[in-house]
Amino acid sequence: MTNQEKAQQLEQWDRCAFFHPSTHLADFAHGKAPERIVNSGSGVYITDSNGNKLLDAFAGLYCVNTGYGQQKIIDAICKQAQELAYYHAYVGHGTEASITLSKMIIDRAPDNMSKVYYGMSGSDANETNIKIIWYYNNVLGRPEKKKIISRWRGYHGSGLMTGSLTGLELFHNQFDLPLSQVIHTDAPYYFHRKDCNQSEAAFSAECADNLEQLILKEGADTIAAFIGEPALGTGGLVPPPKGYWQAIQAVLDKYDILLIADEVISGFGRLGAMFGSDLYGMKPDIITSAKGLTSAYAPLSASIVSDKIWQVLEDGTTKLGAFGHGWTYSAHPIGAAAGVASLELVDELNLVDNANVRGQSLLNKLKTAIGSHKNVGDIRGQGLLCAIEFVADKNSRTLFNPIGQHGPKVAAAMLARHVIGRAMPQGDIIGIAPPLIISEAEIDTVVSAITAAVSEVFGD
Amino acid sequence: MTNQEKAQQLEQWDRCAFFHPSTHLADFAHGKAPERIVNSGSGVYITDSNGNKLLDAFAGLYCVNTGYGQQKIIDAICKQAQELAYYHAYVGHGTEASITLSKMIIDRAPDNMSKVYYGMSGSDANETNIKIIWYYNNVLGRPEKKKIISRWRGYHGSGLMTGSLTGLELFHNQFDLPLSQVIHTDAPYYFHRKDCNQSEAAFSAECADNLEQLILKEGADTIAAFIGEPALGTGGLVPPPKGYWQAIQAVLDKYDILLIADEVISGFGRLGAMFGSDLYGMKPDIITSAKGLTSAYAPLSASIVSDKIWQVLEDGTTKLGAFGHGWTYSAHPIGAAAGVASLELVDELNLVDNANVRGQSLLNKLKTAIGSHKNVGDIRGQGLLCAIEFVADKNSRTLFNPIGQHGPKVAAAMLARHVIGRAMPQGDIIGIAPPLIISEAEIDTVVSAITAAVSEVFGD
Repeated sequence: MTNQEKAQQLEQWDRCAFFHPSTHLADFAHGKAPERIVNSGSGVYITDSNGNKLLDAFAGLYCVNTGYGQQKIIDAICKQAQELAYYHAYVGHGTEASITLSKMIIDRAPDNMSKVYYGMSGSDANETNIKIIWYYNNVLGRPEKKKIISRWRGYHGSGLMTGSLTGLELFHNQFDLPLSQVIHTDAPYYFHRKDCNQSEAAFSAECADNLEQLILKEGADTIAAFIGEPALGTGGLVPPPKGYWQAIQAVLDKYDILLIADEVISGFGRLGAMFGSDLYGMKPDIITSAKGLTSAYAPLSASIVSDKIWQVLEDGTTKLGAFGHGWTYSAHPIGAAAGVASLELVDELNLVDNANVRGQSLLNKLKTAIGSHKNVGDIRGQGLLCAIEFVADKNSRTLFNPIGQHGPKVAAAMLARHVIGRAMPQGDIIGIAPPLIISEAEIDTVVSAITAAVSEVFGD
Repeated sequence: MTNQEKAQQLEQWDRCAFFHPSTHLADFAHGKAPERIVNSGSGVYITDSNGNKLLDAFAGLYCVNTGYGQQKIIDAICKQAQELAYYHAYVGHGTEASITLSKMIIDRAPDNMSKVYYGMSGSDANETNIKIIWYYNNVLGRPEKKKIISRWRGYHGSGLMTGSLTGLELFHNQFDLPLSQVIHTDAPYYFHRKDCNQSEAAFSAECADNLEQLILKEGADTIAAFIGEPALGTGGLVPPPKGYWQAIQAVLDKYDILLIADEVISGFGRLGAMFGSDLYGMKPDIITSAKGLTSAYAPLSASIVSDKIWQVLEDGTTKLGAFGHGWTYSAHPIGAAAGVASLELVDELNLVDNANVRGQSLLNKLKTAIGSHKNVGDIRGQGLLCAIEFVADKNSRTLFNPIGQHGPKVAAAMLARHVIGRAMPQGDIIGIAPPLIISEAEIDTVVSAITAAVSEVFGD
């Protein structure tokens, strides 16, 4: 079979047998939407089956933090596969890698963190978190304290409960979500404030006040937890306004409401700090981690629970016996080995600092290049989590109507220049979240591609 | 550091940082429950850090179907890790392995199956299935047709929805499950029938009749789907009674209720057939797969959807745009590569047939060895999914009271003889589900260990 025949066969199989996530199913199946087969990766680049080499300025789905082709992680995966590809972690079983990784995570996490439960994805980790919290309040004899408050624009997964926590209509529509146990409060999205003259501090105070009103309306004894990403991810890549987390934390403390910090994106360096919780002064009871934990070389997630939670879980098992929750692939040996190697690389390559330095540089260069462009409404970021939001009119901060048509056009124009940026759903927003190893020269390449793409789509 | 010091350090880290699934948390943290670090595996054996070599007659968690240390799968993992450890599968992206695996799955699945959606675990695949089914009925304009009927004793996962589908109280207690969208019907557990004189056919008819009554009571226009394992797994490893699936299928067809066949355990050979659906004449609309799909060498699951479902999903995206569901690690490249190699091995090593032949032999030898023992109530199985259920009195089929104390004793006595069998929760049941590569000599080792363990625990 020639290479061309093989390529044709693969495309036919792809369109007739593969149900891709987040895809227009009819268009893909009938050949009306593009197909891309990715063959290899190195550093910040991937190469597809047509030989296109693309600078991946979104690190897969903001997850390949150490970059593609890191030999240390590859070797760790191969060694573990050779020795023991699988054994379960139930009833006290483990591997050297899964135990070592647990210790490494607790060493890096905020001070009050105690234990690590493993899953395979951020979604399943948030499922675990809700189960833990419901169990916690049952053990404490507070069976009514069960509702979870999330934010509009938050992203916490794509399952039934976790898609409910996600505050994006795209993930609710036609799926009968959110489930009734989940309530949403304000998005901490300062750029979208109603009153353009409102200060960041005043906006944060309003978010906290609205949260308190919601809690009082529902009854604090019915609210178990609040979940939030330190900086919004899929909802638009939005760092919190000044004072936001301090104000929110005070309300949660006042009403004995637990805080889940969803650090799936931010954990292990993306914001230029090891955890976003440290950066913003959050005091989480549970931290959700995935993506950067293994740099996506293997599916692995972690629910990191605090001492306060753990003590109650211990009491629970003393009263009730074994904790009835487990995934077959909890602490999968290959995932754990990839995690150990990836976290070591974060240290060895000084990636937390690099995220900080390169992120600052990226922001500055973007502002210089396109900050005054008539359709560039906002350039924002923290570490290597950055966004550009486009508007119909800069001075009045008028969004496009309908929303969401221009982000994809800019992403397509960037792709034509061999740079991958992500058009975020439910906004005219381009997300930039490259591997944390990105160099200054590669930052320049990204900024050039964005600048040219903005010109192409909107004119100068 | 000496080996002994290293071992002590690992144990300390394990007990102070690792939150193990399905474990007594207090006992483990305080050193009162055993710890085992597994180092390596080969064939049907694993070896722990103390040098114990154990015959794993439960294949991890009935998942290492091709056995430990299969070089073909290890090589596929290493090759994929070297070329491209990760890229996402959103909006039409894929890898040669993920596309090839899709084609291989559809080739092996029942005739009416069309497309494969990938996740990481059986739990997340069932989440996906429920989302698909709710979306399906919304697209068809039947927004009230949403409830899911599951069976007591079924196992479908450990999340909030999937733990609700699971019909075992252990997974509901203290977690506020099941959620309201899930209803349970009879367990197809002939050995536990109320009337010992009832025939299998009559029992099956009763299950189908009770299902129909439940549907009529709830209203057929409120019931979306029925989910079931072809043979019960965690609920007790119970093949269906004669005529069961034919009778159930007729009721589902009558009321336009979809069937999800949860083949996480049974898919790809465990029952001595490629799929349990084929073996029992089920006509599923969606098949759930995981475990045997990769032999657990990497976390990967599949929701295999039929033509009938797919056509409606296509219509949905034509009306509504992209299908808003995705996991970061959907179709993870390393998982897909492991899947291709594992399914090729199933063919090359003729494992479907081996499961059939060795399973029959295991059943026969167990019946000969302990079938007449006073405390052996039932020996049952299909392919290499077998169980022994212990009773207080054989003639009257009286179960132990309290239930569940004797299974763990037999498992411990087997373990002392270096054979791992699993004490199933909520029963005095030992599950035997070894790698499908098991040899006749290894079957003999398993039977000997069980026979001796039964003698030790119950006397002769």
